[in-house]
Amino acid sequence: MTSSFTHRHIGPQADEQAEMLKAVGYESLDQLMDAAVPESIRFRGVLDLPAGASEEETIAELRAIAARNSLVTPMIGLGYYGTHTPAVIKRNVLENPAWYTAYTPYQPEISQGRLEALLNFQTMVTDLTGLTTANASMLDEATAVAEAMTLARRASKVKSLVYAVDADTFPQTLAVLRTRAEPLGIEVELVDLDTGELPEEYFGLHLQYPGASGAVRDHAALIEAAHAKGALVTVAADLLALTLLRAPGEIGADIAAGTTQRFGVPLGFGGPHAGYLAVRGGLERSLPGRLVGVSKDADGAPAYRLALQTREQHIRREKATSNICTAQVLLAVMASMYAVYHGPAGLRAIAKRVHEHALTLAGSLAAAGVEVAHQAFFDTVTAVVPGRAESIVAAAAADGVDLRLVDADRVSIACDETTTAAHVATVLAAFGATVAEPAACGAKPLARTSDYLHHPVFNTHHSETGMLRYLRKLSDRDYALDRGMIPLGSCTMKLNATTEMEAVTWPEFANIHPFAPVGQVQGYERLVAQLEGWLAEITGYDAVSVQPNAGSQGELAGLLAIRGYHRSRGAADRDVCLIPSSAHGTNAASAVMAGMRVVVVACDENGNVDLTDLAAKIEKHASSLAAIMVTYPSTHGVYETGIAELCERVHEAGGQVYVDGANLNALVGFAKPGKFGADVSHLNLHKTFCIPHGGGGPGVGPVAVRAHLAEFLPGNPLEPGDHHAVSAAAHGSAGILPISWAYVRMMGPDGLAQATATAVLAANYVASRLREHYPVLYAGEHGLVAHECILDLRPITKATGVSVDDVAKRLIDYGFHAPTMSFPVAGTLMVEPTESEDLAELDRFCAAMIAIKGEIDQVAAGVWPRDDNPLANAPHTASAVSADEWSHPYPRSVAGFPEGVDRTAKYWPPVRRIDGAYGDRNLVCSCPSPEAFES
Amino acid sequence: MTSSFTHRHIGPQADEQAEMLKAVGYESLDQLMDAAVPESIRFRGVLDLPAGASEEETIAELRAIAARNSLVTPMIGLGYYGTHTPAVIKRNVLENPAWYTAYTPYQPEISQGRLEALLNFQTMVTDLTGLTTANASMLDEATAVAEAMTLARRASKVKSLVYAVDADTFPQTLAVLRTRAEPLGIEVELVDLDTGELPEEYFGLHLQYPGASGAVRDHAALIEAAHAKGALVTVAADLLALTLLRAPGEIGADIAAGTTQRFGVPLGFGGPHAGYLAVRGGLERSLPGRLVGVSKDADGAPAYRLALQTREQHIRREKATSNICTAQVLLAVMASMYAVYHGPAGLRAIAKRVHEHALTLAGSLAAAGVEVAHQAFFDTVTAVVPGRAESIVAAAAADGVDLRLVDADRVSIACDETTTAAHVATVLAAFGATVAEPAACGAKPLARTSDYLHHPVFNTHHSETGMLRYLRKLSDRDYALDRGMIPLGSCTMKLNATTEMEAVTWPEFANIHPFAPVGQVQGYERLVAQLEGWLAEITGYDAVSVQPNAGSQGELAGLLAIRGYHRSRGAADRDVCLIPSSAHGTNAASAVMAGMRVVVVACDENGNVDLTDLAAKIEKHASSLAAIMVTYPSTHGVYETGIAELCERVHEAGGQVYVDGANLNALVGFAKPGKFGADVSHLNLHKTFCIPHGGGGPGVGPVAVRAHLAEFLPGNPLEPGDHHAVSAAAHGSAGILPISWAYVRMMGPDGLAQATATAVLAANYVASRLREHYPVLYAGEHGLVAHECILDLRPITKATGVSVDDVAKRLIDYGFHAPTMSFPVAGTLMVEPTESEDLAELDRFCAAMIAIKGEIDQVAAGVWPRDDNPLANAPHTASAVSADEWSHPYPRSVAGFPEGVDRTAKYWPPVRRIDGAYGDRNLVCSCPSPEAFES
Repeated sequence: MTSSFTHRHIGPQADEQAEMLKAVGYESLDQLMDAAVPESIRFRGVLDLPAGASEEETIAELRAIAARNSLVTPMIGLGYYGTHTPAVIKRNVLENPAWYTAYTPYQPEISQGRLEALLNFQTMVTDLTGLTTANASMLDEATAVAEAMTLARRASKVKSLVYAVDADTFPQTLAVLRTRAEPLGIEVELVDLDTGELPEEYFGLHLQYPGASGAVRDHAALIEAAHAKGALVTVAADLLALTLLRAPGEIGADIAAGTTQRFGVPLGFGGPHAGYLAVRGGLERSLPGRLVGVSKDADGAPAYRLALQTREQHIRREKATSNICTAQVLLAVMASMYAVYHGPAGLRAIAKRVHEHALTLAGSLAAAGVEVAHQAFFDTVTAVVPGRAESIVAAAAADGVDLRLVDADRVSIACDETTTAAHVATVLAAFGATVAEPAACGAKPLARTSDYLHHPVFNTHHSETGMLRYLRKLSDRDYALDRGMIPLGSCTMKLNATTEMEAVTWPEFANIHPFAPVGQVQGYERLVAQLEGWLAEITGYDAVSVQPNAGSQGELAGLLAIRGYHRSRGAADRDVCLIPSSAHGTNAASAVMAGMRVVVVACDENGNVDLTDLAAKIEKHASSLAAIMVTYPSTHGVYETGIAELCERVHEAGGQVYVDGANLNALVGFAKPGKFGADVSHLNLHKTFCIPHGGGGPGVGPVAVRAHLAEFLPGNPLEPGDHHAVSAAAHGSAGILPISWAYVRMMGPDGLAQATATAVLAANYVASRLREHYPVLYAGEHGLVAHECILDLRPITKATGVSVDDVAKRLIDYGFHAPTMSFPVAGTLMVEPTESEDLAELDRFCAAMIAIKGEIDQVAAGVWPRDDNPLANAPHTASAVSADEWSHPYPRSVAGFPEGVDRTAKYWPPVRRIDGAYGDRNLVCSCPSPEAFES
Repeated sequence: MTSSFTHRHIGPQADEQAEMLKAVGYESLDQLMDAAVPESIRFRGVLDLPAGASEEETIAELRAIAARNSLVTPMIGLGYYGTHTPAVIKRNVLENPAWYTAYTPYQPEISQGRLEALLNFQTMVTDLTGLTTANASMLDEATAVAEAMTLARRASKVKSLVYAVDADTFPQTLAVLRTRAEPLGIEVELVDLDTGELPEEYFGLHLQYPGASGAVRDHAALIEAAHAKGALVTVAADLLALTLLRAPGEIGADIAAGTTQRFGVPLGFGGPHAGYLAVRGGLERSLPGRLVGVSKDADGAPAYRLALQTREQHIRREKATSNICTAQVLLAVMASMYAVYHGPAGLRAIAKRVHEHALTLAGSLAAAGVEVAHQAFFDTVTAVVPGRAESIVAAAAADGVDLRLVDADRVSIACDETTTAAHVATVLAAFGATVAEPAACGAKPLARTSDYLHHPVFNTHHSETGMLRYLRKLSDRDYALDRGMIPLGSCTMKLNATTEMEAVTWPEFANIHPFAPVGQVQGYERLVAQLEGWLAEITGYDAVSVQPNAGSQGELAGLLAIRGYHRSRGAADRDVCLIPSSAHGTNAASAVMAGMRVVVVACDENGNVDLTDLAAKIEKHASSLAAIMVTYPSTHGVYETGIAELCERVHEAGGQVYVDGANLNALVGFAKPGKFGADVSHLNLHKTFCIPHGGGGPGVGPVAVRAHLAEFLPGNPLEPGDHHAVSAAAHGSAGILPISWAYVRMMGPDGLAQATATAVLAANYVASRLREHYPVLYAGEHGLVAHECILDLRPITKATGVSVDDVAKRLIDYGFHAPTMSFPVAGTLMVEPTESEDLAELDRFCAAMIAIKGEIDQVAAGVWPRDDNPLANAPHTASAVSADEWSHPYPRSVAGFPEGVDRTAKYWPPVRRIDGAYGDRNLVCSCPSPEAFES
């Protein structure tokens, strides 16, 4: 029984599938999959999942689940605050496929819109923190702070492995810091800033500003002292508070980290939100994560692109600064637009309102005889109520407001943008108090006097009409799935269906604090439990945790589980991680973060893991073997037949098998890693399970393990007994889990299997159509690829000088996003069409590739010079093709409207080819002045 | 106290307003308005409305109102059915500003997307009805049927004024038919098709197919008989039924009419939905409403535009075929996309499922001994339950299903796309029955054998990815408010704020049947009552009805109120309606429909009503004077000072004063028509009160009256005692009233007044900046215009040949929608910037107009020939400016990137200038074959 949604999700309808099968040479999807998937790993049953539901049934079920979450006003704080998402931003960013179906801006010419938005984000962060360079977002505050710690470790000349941490730090941040510190040998040492002392030696100091208790302290002297010791100082700062308080950069901080959630991003029970990380001058090249910078295009016009990529994991592998791949682009865009929409005066007004509510609370509590712990605070007041804390929190909850139960004697109350006088009165009533005069502001000496957000972008789009047009203008510059195919190998750019997206913005999912009492979040708990169960069934594992909020974090969590397992068995010396040479760079970077040593295993000429080399490496490291990390199907897009044997050999040597789930879209319903020999995998819900890429995040990277590793899954960051939390919230980016839940619910076991088979069919169809024009590298049994295929351009490049880059950029002229470039093999293009592209679009892509081959032939034949042809000059802007002068040896029509392009619906890139190296040499990572754009 | 929303709605922020005031020569908005608005009409108080609420407060209040509507499953039928709006269509059309903020496609070059969607709509209707030509939608089924009646009257050669009407017609349709028939002297004669006989003579016959009772009858013989009498036959047909039943055209109908609501358009308590009207060959030039046709552009490429406009009210005035201006474009787009997404096979499958549920109901009822009234039916089963009907309906309602209480002895049950087996069981339980074998299908002899929807557009976009891209491609061809200013005089294209739009798609507003029991719709009742009250306060009238679902219907309702008033006083002979020569053509057409004679009053050289001519006309028609219809501020955009005197004179002569509310945006908070002398007005909620234009509908045209006319307001179409219902549903397009409600709620009295003053400021700012380049026609006291200004191009055209059209099309190259062309004065452009455009956009517009004047000067100077210059060739497509050959005397850069255009964000029209006359000579009003687009 196939659900009505299945044929909406899958692009090729029955007649088209038949045509494609014919081209590939098979009679049915079953026959194709029998040939493609090795029998040794084949799952021959039917997934034990509920039968696929219709879109309407799914929405109805989600509404019932949502109704089990309680909309209590959260005044818990700890880095998560109520906020008003401006409606114009919600509808036109968070609910707009032009934004949410975009990919990471690796093709900058067709990503100028979101790159500008991210540059605004970076400018917002550097302005508010008073630092020099910010990256384009982090996964959350806790991981941002952890990255700051390792950055400090890299940058400090002090030998010590001690990291001094403000005891008034958010507890979830502490949990993640500890997780990250331990494998690296870093010692986290808590310091009570009011009573304690700093350690003798330490390489870095972490300060929370304001503190978890709400206290605002003057950190300037501490920072000076730390610097005197050669330590670097990170300040985890609240950006809204920074509109009123002295900036970290102004008090000497080297690094600032935190979250931008309260800038209009829904709570979502913990995420996704954009964390931030900013550094002072001199540290920018050590900054992990994505960094947007300004460069120039072929005409010399300013153009944005990702900067300094050479420091990233996909190039530096185990020598990278971090394993971070993705950012939280969609949420960073929202937060930046919140700042654009409110402007500096608006943000300051919001902050003042928040602060005034806190002052009223403090004054009224004091008037009622309740002790207030601190005189200087921004939004959070901690009341000292010996023995009464629980009853006060309960009383407030009964009246619809959640407070933070610090301990039996203390209650914290966090005000935010959504706080009203009525909330304040309700809170006071829970203390037996009534509204009285506000307290005097104790933070005045720390008041900010410097300017911020003076760039025109923050001072222009303040009417809704203006904002709407700015958002449209930016999204119109970009290419996303709503325009056409994005055949990126290993990225699985499939449909992000509207019904999957719908529940994300419902208040019952959007407005839930991650630390709300469990009784209030029964809907979320049920949804998470169901989804984890379904993912376990699909992958064949015994336990799943959705906590990791990106694939990289899933890798780390999985490796930490392996590490914990070995240690629990007294095998702490097992620290070698085997990684094939074809692996994603992230694998190696994650292994290092998990305290492992990376040993590379060679691949054979077919792209498969070289089993001989594997045997040698196992033998060499037998006693210290911790794990092997392999991707399946391989990063070459092939169902390797040796996988079962590989697993066996590693197990025999006492190692654990980590199967990277990046390519799970080729397995669902046909093979289960947990059954064919793997011990742990991470999945990418933003690939196989339809969470949109959001222009470069959010991602969700659940970790799945067999039973013996289950006890080593990530723990709840708020429960001190639990080990290695990898995200700040127990369920990570819970707010977008309804997407994957809806996908599985609507597809059902049959739909999911059909999707897999159709994805494999599509890849083989493309391979069969393009094979005579471009060599297809690697194949499995029967000459079949899995869900993607690699087109080898190296002979072409050698013969003609036309590079992979040229073809990728020329595809823009034809109306396509390029396939993956030079991964896993330099000089190739890897194409993953997914199951969602219909035959017309697949054919349009093949036709474009074939036409491009024809153009390459013209270069080869000398008709067009190597340095002046439609490929070398691609992409062509509208401005370029209509220039008054035209001196190229090919006509304008070939440049702008190559074969097959619809003249009435052409996507024009806003800039010509971008010179990335120029931007790296001349690093500019905040908004350039408007004058820079004058031609 | 100004709400936080006010400065989001109003474009120019405080500093910009100050700059604009300076340019206009005033120190404050107050001072400007004191000078602009004649003291004689000035309202000096503060509107008695609640203070403006924030966006969040407003959403919270709307949620509370929504919660008072009950989500009971409606199986009431009567032309309104549950339907699943495909999520991809809801999000990307109904919730997408690119679609909903577009204007009527009068500038076809920048409206090709919605014109294609409407052509799909027309093709869908003609295919399913089996007729030749369909228009681009009607306001609802009842008004469509009424228009069919008058079309038949115009086309029939029979002298009789008798219109024979199937007694099994929907009751609301009958009510509207009677409203429309009476003023025209048409006699509606009901005929029971099972037992009665047709009248001796009649000009037309109306049949419902299937009938209101659900009965499917074979109408072929009746139609033949009617034709033999010289009568025309209209079949009001259900489009979903037509996927299974013989088409009206196949059984001989001349006209088909109905609704497309059940094609994915939410119920919305009655609307808005797209009605349809289709005719056989030979009647197309008599068809009222908008009609999209295929023509060609300057390159000979196929291009769409509105066809046969010469038959419309804005040209033919009182000789027009109808007063219809707007259609229901947004809803027609949705319905057409529903057909595109499901395709013929999908629609047929839905219809079969619906029919099978009905068969199960009928079989099970019969098995339980309940008499079923008809053997042949599609979706609706009428059960004969003597004396038990009320208790059965109550029992079903208690279980969450609404049935139709026909009378004490009969209950009707309508199945639809959302009906499930569970619903069927619930219904049966209410009858004391259980599920049994389905009945045999009694409609088989009428089964459809012909093909439909075979055009590729209905057979291509069946995956969600495909649908999403098709929607994006079409919307990308169009220019809407989300791209830039649409300064259309008299159209008030202001912001349609997201928060205003949000509630429209909430289930509690969207899924309510218009005939649901009043106890279930307390939310709607409250919202309507509040909104009507607020509109009364704003306009100074005593009573308001929101029933009219377009301005034209508001006019008719207002004139019918005047007619009713005179008749109630024994003055039935008062039938002259005075209309100034500058009036909207609709005024005259409406007057004719209301049974009045139109007498034109001259305007003086200042554009004001010529009070001398008025006196003469009053004197001449003193005893027969019914009313005067004037627009205020005048259609020339001027606050005429004589308005009070005019009202007085007409009143003295026994006439009533109708003030057309089209220009109310210049009055709100500053003058109240109901207080300065008018007796009745209609308002345009889609102008002043922020309902989006939707690309040419929906509109809402409430009628407002003074106390003495209140009893003549439109009545409830389902209450037979009530008089002249003008729409099928009591509250018309209730589903979009939350938009205007939210606008008034958020702006409050101060915000509304500020909006008015800013709109007047913006118009005067534009006038002051452009005056030295183009003469500004007409002004009021102190040389001020009201909310719009007229730029006179006649001297330019005379001197250079550059026409209004040339300037309008050239504005497209500069990135603008043209102002209103040649209304109210031929050869001019009327500019209404509204309060929502910020200073940067106003300046961009002024700069473009000034630059265009510079281009005109080049033509005048002979630099460019009259027939080959950037104006004559405008608009320029990307294809044109990058053509391999370029022979024009001006460079490509001038063509495509004139001064001030952002090279990275240029809107390109998809076609060049369209030859409208060609299309009218070669009428094609359904989708052309794909081959037509091959160049």
